[in-house]
Amino acid sequence: MTRIYLNDTHDPKLQSWVHGANEADNGFPIQNLPFAVARRRDNQEDFRVMVAIGPYALDLGLLACDTPWKGKAAEALAACVKPALNALMALGQDHWSALRVALSHDLRQGSSAESRLRPMLIERTKLEYALPAQIGDYTDFYISVHHATAIGKQFRPDAPLLPNYKWVPIGYHGRASSIGVSGQQFPRPLGQTRPSEGQEAPNFGPCERLDFELEMGILIGTGNEAGRRIPIGEANEHVFGLCIFNDWSARDLQAWEYQPLGPFLAKNFASTISPWVVTLEALAPFRRPFSRPESDPQPLPYLQDQANKDSGVLDVELEVYLSTEQSRQQKKDPALLSRSNFKEAYWTVAQLVAHHSVNGCNLQTGDLLGTGTLSGPAKGQEGSLLEMNQGGKNPIDLPWGEQRKFLEDQDEIILKAQCRQEGYPTLSFGECAGRVLPAVL
Amino acid sequence: MTRIYLNDTHDPKLQSWVHGANEADNGFPIQNLPFAVARRRDNQEDFRVMVAIGPYALDLGLLACDTPWKGKAAEALAACVKPALNALMALGQDHWSALRVALSHDLRQGSSAESRLRPMLIERTKLEYALPAQIGDYTDFYISVHHATAIGKQFRPDAPLLPNYKWVPIGYHGRASSIGVSGQQFPRPLGQTRPSEGQEAPNFGPCERLDFELEMGILIGTGNEAGRRIPIGEANEHVFGLCIFNDWSARDLQAWEYQPLGPFLAKNFASTISPWVVTLEALAPFRRPFSRPESDPQPLPYLQDQANKDSGVLDVELEVYLSTEQSRQQKKDPALLSRSNFKEAYWTVAQLVAHHSVNGCNLQTGDLLGTGTLSGPAKGQEGSLLEMNQGGKNPIDLPWGEQRKFLEDQDEIILKAQCRQEGYPTLSFGECAGRVLPAVL
Repeated sequence: MTRIYLNDTHDPKLQSWVHGANEADNGFPIQNLPFAVARRRDNQEDFRVMVAIGPYALDLGLLACDTPWKGKAAEALAACVKPALNALMALGQDHWSALRVALSHDLRQGSSAESRLRPMLIERTKLEYALPAQIGDYTDFYISVHHATAIGKQFRPDAPLLPNYKWVPIGYHGRASSIGVSGQQFPRPLGQTRPSEGQEAPNFGPCERLDFELEMGILIGTGNEAGRRIPIGEANEHVFGLCIFNDWSARDLQAWEYQPLGPFLAKNFASTISPWVVTLEALAPFRRPFSRPESDPQPLPYLQDQANKDSGVLDVELEVYLSTEQSRQQKKDPALLSRSNFKEAYWTVAQLVAHHSVNGCNLQTGDLLGTGTLSGPAKGQEGSLLEMNQGGKNPIDLPWGEQRKFLEDQDEIILKAQCRQEGYPTLSFGECAGRVLPAVL
Repeated sequence: MTRIYLNDTHDPKLQSWVHGANEADNGFPIQNLPFAVARRRDNQEDFRVMVAIGPYALDLGLLACDTPWKGKAAEALAACVKPALNALMALGQDHWSALRVALSHDLRQGSSAESRLRPMLIERTKLEYALPAQIGDYTDFYISVHHATAIGKQFRPDAPLLPNYKWVPIGYHGRASSIGVSGQQFPRPLGQTRPSEGQEAPNFGPCERLDFELEMGILIGTGNEAGRRIPIGEANEHVFGLCIFNDWSARDLQAWEYQPLGPFLAKNFASTISPWVVTLEALAPFRRPFSRPESDPQPLPYLQDQANKDSGVLDVELEVYLSTEQSRQQKKDPALLSRSNFKEAYWTVAQLVAHHSVNGCNLQTGDLLGTGTLSGPAKGQEGSLLEMNQGGKNPIDLPWGEQRKFLEDQDEIILKAQCRQEGYPTLSFGECAGRVLPAVL
């Protein structure tokens, strides 16, 4: 397990020769090195894997044509010519780690590789992105006890949490085909909603309670054979990295359709993922101890991560911003709606992987696990509008004078994530933006 | 819409030059022509597309090397060299139809193609099968009102059906990675189950209420652009064909985990699909009128299939057989547990496709829609053990002296399906078999 912990790529004093990469809080210092699948916006070349450094991306597809390395780093680099991270992710953690070490060395101040690599840098503003991975199966969890409690209160004020919540990392299957990369735009979904008072027939039309969900996405690097579970002590080794994820939700469709088998059309019209995937290895300095309130049950043995008890939790700050047609016309900055943190989650990444496979279900390279809405415990930390507006009751005031209960056409939600701590450069996940278009009738 | 209806390939008098293909009730007459992905069991060649005729399969991968046809039939045949039906399915209905016509002509008694095609026939008993398609997303529906009522009664004797059932074709997302082809074997899943009386902590261990679900699978041929729904009048054109499907279920895991987001680990350890896909075109003679009881609401307009009102329903007979370690040792035939029919379903194939996409969700080539358990209204027509044993109360007597409430290790479930009517050759779907292995602890 030491491999995902600190090594010399995490040295906070490391600096890069890339212009702008050492600026405070630029988010993409040499300690980060997240991966995306991209190409220049101004031509139609094939998408390939790139790594972010400062305001640039290093084109690994180009670097692979003239590979300077040997062994696992070279093998990993060769997988970067593909238009998805799957080939790289399938190689496993030793390869991911070797690639990170090689990139870290070549991008360091004083590296002899500078002159060779410099022409392969592209300003990130000139890129367009593809989905980071070909996603086979997408599972969405429900791991914020604060979100589950807030939503549960709207239905069952006296007993908001169901009896299974503190034992089972609740999850369900989602739709992979409609996941799009940041910048995704989608029409407001149509669907059935509850019958109006006194009516028997349900209503049908454009969703009137359209919401976002602030989540993180976990990309599975290497899977397991069907029928053979992943022990929790090995779970982190199967995870390539994390990104930001917005699981758009049609609350009125959901309320009518979800019994007894769970959400379906309320969720599967669109989900948005950030292009940049921060590796689990890069996140090592931001691990925190896992603990439960004294009054809560300890996890069952298959969910007890003894080896990583002091490092199971990831400290990732999350933010939600909203811009509207009016705010953009008036050149206003997007409004900050909420700030939360992944560390507030009730279950860890390793617990999700161990639980998902405990019945023999085979995870595969490129599978995406959504965390579920990552709300914090306090006001101002809600991960969805349904929580901010208390079930649609209280509109939110926006700084430019508008109000919102739910999303209106042309509204854009921008999710951001970053890791910050004293004495370490800030690591950014970039952003995950998506916009609602009018319904197609 | 006429294209999926009767043409000369459906002439009940057609006979084939292939030995055994004209025998009564052989199931694979020239009117059927289902597709599978297969290879000879005795060598390790690449899998490719084959079509069944009598006791043989015609190797279309081989035929494509020396294509005798032109135009759409030749283009469709060229797609048959691939190890999945996706390339063929993506071409669309005009191509599927052209391939069917060309095959029907060349396989007819008196065809000059006989000498060329004869060496490309393989006995089906010598084949091993792959999954018929690379399945992107798998959705499971719940379209038997008899199943929903029987299960609902076990929880809510006074109001077994939820208020949405007769308005919404209830569905949820399933797991694609663990779908295997007939012959699949899987270990009994482990998982959490409800706490015992007086305990707070749930139990953990091998599933004790393992069940099958008798379903049909619908393979999507051509999809829709994200954000653009498929109108019900066009829905059938997007469907390539149907197969048999067993959605294995761990009832004790399900009862504990499913609130509030639906089944997850109770379903995703394994699902089994039959290798042979019968095209929607082949099923044209077995279409029946769609009707609702007078007392039931009519579907909302987006689910009203006016053009196919007299032909929306498919008449497919379904059977469930069980063999056990003891029955196989004693050389007993598998026991018939149940007989049902797809025509008893509450929603049609076209309604499922229209509903799934009405919110803009993009269906894609190779997506699988399960119908949900296809129970009939009467005793002896149950599509799951949970219905046969009345919620685990009453064991079933097997002809060789054993009893079953739920499945035991080494039990094998064999699902069969066929279309039969006076004056038309019987069309078989082959079988869908799967076996439970002991838990891996």
